[in-house]
Amino acid sequence: MAAKRIAILVDDLYEDLELWYPYYRLLEAGHQVDLIGSERDRAYTSKHHYPAKAVKSIAEVRPEDYDGVVIPGGYAPDRMRRDERMVRFVRQIHDQGKLVAAICHAGWMLVSADVLRGRRATSVRAIRDDMRNAGCEWVDEPVVVDGNLVTSRTPDDLPAYMKAILAKLGEA
Amino acid sequence: MAAKRIAILVDDLYEDLELWYPYYRLLEAGHQVDLIGSERDRAYTSKHHYPAKAVKSIAEVRPEDYDGVVIPGGYAPDRMRRDERMVRFVRQIHDQGKLVAAICHAGWMLVSADVLRGRRATSVRAIRDDMRNAGCEWVDEPVVVDGNLVTSRTPDDLPAYMKAILAKLGEA
Amino acid sequence: MAAKRIAILVDDLYEDLELWYPYYRLLEAGHQVDLIGSERDRAYTSKHHYPAKAVKSIAEVRPEDYDGVVIPGGYAPDRMRRDERMVRFVRQIHDQGKLVAAICHAGWMLVSADVLRGRRATSVRAIRDDMRNAGCEWVDEPVVVDGNLVTSRTPDDLPAYMKAILAKLGEA
Amino acid sequence: MAAKRIAILVDDLYEDLELWYPYYRLLEAGHQVDLIGSERDRAYTSKHHYPAKAVKSIAEVRPEDYDGVVIPGGYAPDRMRRDERMVRFVRQIHDQGKLVAAICHAGWMLVSADVLRGRRATSVRAIRDDMRNAGCEWVDEPVVVDGNLVTSRTPDDLPAYMKAILAKLGEA
Amino acid sequence: MAAKRIAILVDDLYEDLELWYPYYRLLEAGHQVDLIGSERDRAYTSKHHYPAKAVKSIAEVRPEDYDGVVIPGGYAPDRMRRDERMVRFVRQIHDQGKLVAAICHAGWMLVSADVLRGRRATSVRAIRDDMRNAGCEWVDEPVVVDGNLVTSRTPDDLPAYMKAILAKLGEA
Amino acid sequence: MAAKRIAILVDDLYEDLELWYPYYRLLEAGHQVDLIGSERDRAYTSKHHYPAKAVKSIAEVRPEDYDGVVIPGGYAPDRMRRDERMVRFVRQIHDQGKLVAAICHAGWMLVSADVLRGRRATSVRAIRDDMRNAGCEWVDEPVVVDGNLVTSRTPDDLPAYMKAILAKLGEA
Repeated sequence: MAAKRIAILVDDLYEDLELWYPYYRLLEAGHQVDLIGSERDRAYTSKHHYPAKAVKSIAEVRPEDYDGVVIPGGYAPDRMRRDERMVRFVRQIHDQGKLVAAICHAGWMLVSADVLRGRRATSVRAIRDDMRNAGCEWVDEPVVVDGNLVTSRTPDDLPAYMKAILAKLGEA
Repeated sequence: MAAKRIAILVDDLYEDLELWYPYYRLLEAGHQVDLIGSERDRAYTSKHHYPAKAVKSIAEVRPEDYDGVVIPGGYAPDRMRRDERMVRFVRQIHDQGKLVAAICHAGWMLVSADVLRGRRATSVRAIRDDMRNAGCEWVDEPVVVDGNLVTSRTPDDLPAYMKAILAKLGEA
Repeated sequence: MAAKRIAILVDDLYEDLELWYPYYRLLEAGHQVDLIGSERDRAYTSKHHYPAKAVKSIAEVRPEDYDGVVIPGGYAPDRMRRDERMVRFVRQIHDQGKLVAAICHAGWMLVSADVLRGRRATSVRAIRDDMRNAGCEWVDEPVVVDGNLVTSRTPDDLPAYMKAILAKLGEA
Repeated sequence: MAAKRIAILVDDLYEDLELWYPYYRLLEAGHQVDLIGSERDRAYTSKHHYPAKAVKSIAEVRPEDYDGVVIPGGYAPDRMRRDERMVRFVRQIHDQGKLVAAICHAGWMLVSADVLRGRRATSVRAIRDDMRNAGCEWVDEPVVVDGNLVTSRTPDDLPAYMKAILAKLGEA
Repeated sequence: MAAKRIAILVDDLYEDLELWYPYYRLLEAGHQVDLIGSERDRAYTSKHHYPAKAVKSIAEVRPEDYDGVVIPGGYAPDRMRRDERMVRFVRQIHDQGKLVAAICHAGWMLVSADVLRGRRATSVRAIRDDMRNAGCEWVDEPVVVDGNLVTSRTPDDLPAYMKAILAKLGEA
Repeated sequence: MAAKRIAILVDDLYEDLELWYPYYRLLEAGHQVDLIGSERDRAYTSKHHYPAKAVKSIAEVRPEDYDGVVIPGGYAPDRMRRDERMVRFVRQIHDQGKLVAAICHAGWMLVSADVLRGRRATSVRAIRDDMRNAGCEWVDEPVVVDGNLVTSRTPDDLPAYMKAILAKLGEA
């Protein structure tokens, strides 16, 4: 399997494990991972104040440079979606048919990127109505794979989530 | 003007001023106000850990007992909307034609109560897409009054928000 | 009623609602409000770490430019009174016969400005002895108006406090 | 030198070192020390959340059982002085001619116990006006000894403060 | 590959990712994992206050019931090693020839279990001297495998660490 | 008794009282004390975030300039021992036959400075094994004096610890 280049989006209040488990897991599998924030070299902090430094800013990356994007939950997506560049990046990755993975509240980024119409997906229960209103068939399952879209509900789904993501990267 | 009975919903992570400014302001105007949470007598804490004790639980209140509901923002609405009883309470107050006021992220409760179809409303910018997907015409104004629905954007809109709420209660 | 120009003093450890309720309430009533600290543009934080940015420093304001001063409680007054300029500002506003309003521990500023001799006033119970020693008749009432001096006890008195302040501004 | 029995008063928000330096120093000198709070066995926390467990409640101690009282600063004295039993205990120790030591904001307890009339004393600068209004000659010195009254200004005065306290206990 | 039963030890101040990455990674690989603390059902908190509930207490587990033990770093090992039952559990797992994995400050548990004599191992740099004094050849490498002993240095070694652990479990 | 020059080492996470009690106690006894950190003028914070500013950096001090070194516990020693200059400073003070005092987890610095072989010493129970592996006879006593080496276990030993330190400075 060839190494892939994966973008992980970051902002303050990200859910600790929903960022770091995918981060280290992708590295363990041999992929290349970049943490991308609104500002380069800024140390964003998780819901529990665990620091995560963005190695690149959203202003300097191009969707062409990545094979997929992985979005953590927590309340970080509530912040990310206010940045049009972040939203556009996700939409473009999606439109290029590459992996778009979102767990928990990260579904809000799928809503704002408008990539849910006619899709099957899941998320944390709290944003179910937002997901449905954005046009998806919302189901209550540990992980849902619909084409290039991989979604999960909570940290406890991380093993199933990463298995699906790695399978998707392997098949690409 | 006759005193009205107003319900203010509360949960952890409420935005401090979006709860307390309406609370004291309604009292100052001579109205009766109840803080209502999922549990009675529990001290919920704001984003900045300011305590707010619920005097009643959502299980023991009836929409008939109130003349309106005021919903604070912060991330409290992300929690409230997981409680079907909270959502139903807002919908019933709305369906009875009484005041429903929501500021900032409180718009999520309007989404889940499904009271936005065909309405004009505002909210914090971050949830604009969720508001639109729920069927409203979203505008960027300090306060929007559409029938019994009063919505605002952020703490800085509190003066305009409360003026509109008090006017609405006075006209009823 | 003509709009008045009101100074609200701020320092770290201010009581959250005793600053922000008067702030937004005065704006709602159509007055102009300036947050004034020992340093301009510094973000002071409340007892619960709610930020409040001073738009002007005490060094650059003149009592002539204001129609009154409102002082929040918390432990901010314990800090403010160490700054002679803050104390002098309150005394001068007072000597010009303009509104001086103090709630809770803000009474300490009245003590240091020496404006309590022969007056009737209240405060949080804890500083009652300091108030009496400064020469006032201390009473346990929600709000006490004695000439241009308006005093209250705790956040729960905010509705009565602001009613009295607004009445005072309206009569001026 | 005979061992003395010393009461140290405690409440939340005590200044860490102003409690613990006297505590260990008195023990090192061979004296017996009791931490006394409004509730027995409660763990009070300092300004920095350092825990201090009260071994006795103010309800169960008698001034006759102690040779002196030492009062820490921080904002603990603002709480202690609301408890009439605490204030009375200090006044009685004083009236029995025994050691009363107060540092920093602990001067507030001397104000409320009304033991400052005609005395020479110091305190943190912030409460100078309250001390003066209570009738003392306030001076800006590291430690002031006036009969059985020992007062200091801030943590940096602790060495001079404890030297004076120990000398006072030794001469008794 | 058959599923293994793995014990992960937990105590307050554990390094967040050094516990949770192995936890979810082992689950993803199909193994069974138990979090074991000094008390059952207690929620221990990480250096950043991320909660981790122990499903079993050290008092109720037997080394015979597990195929290996994984020990997180942070300052949790400084607490674990005070509990003789925790130390004995690690020594017995080791003496039964099963996997013993330790990252960062978890080396302290290997020191106290006295399983380092004559072995090759690594750890966070800070405890290098303690490791050497306990008899091991200390090297500065991302992961060191010496028989049933797997050691790593810091969170950034997690991918290499887990690869080695999974390889070891697969070969058993 | 002549005044001595004492170095107190500091780093983040120092145990509050294990630094400040010796600090003020040595000053009270008439000695000169310098707080020394890896960086000059940096404010290190204790386990409870009490600030302590280093007046000198380890880079600019010479063992010849001091009559002894006192090392606080907490997790600060886990940081100090990573700095070879800190470790060397302690070893040189020791080799010059001057006072070396360590309480609680400060024993780690004695381990890394390799000054424990053949000595009698104590420490917090948690690091007993590291102390023994470094060659000392570890005993469970409030304070242990072995030549120029003075060691104690926890904050509650501070009175005995300082008595022994002061006696040692007096006899030199």
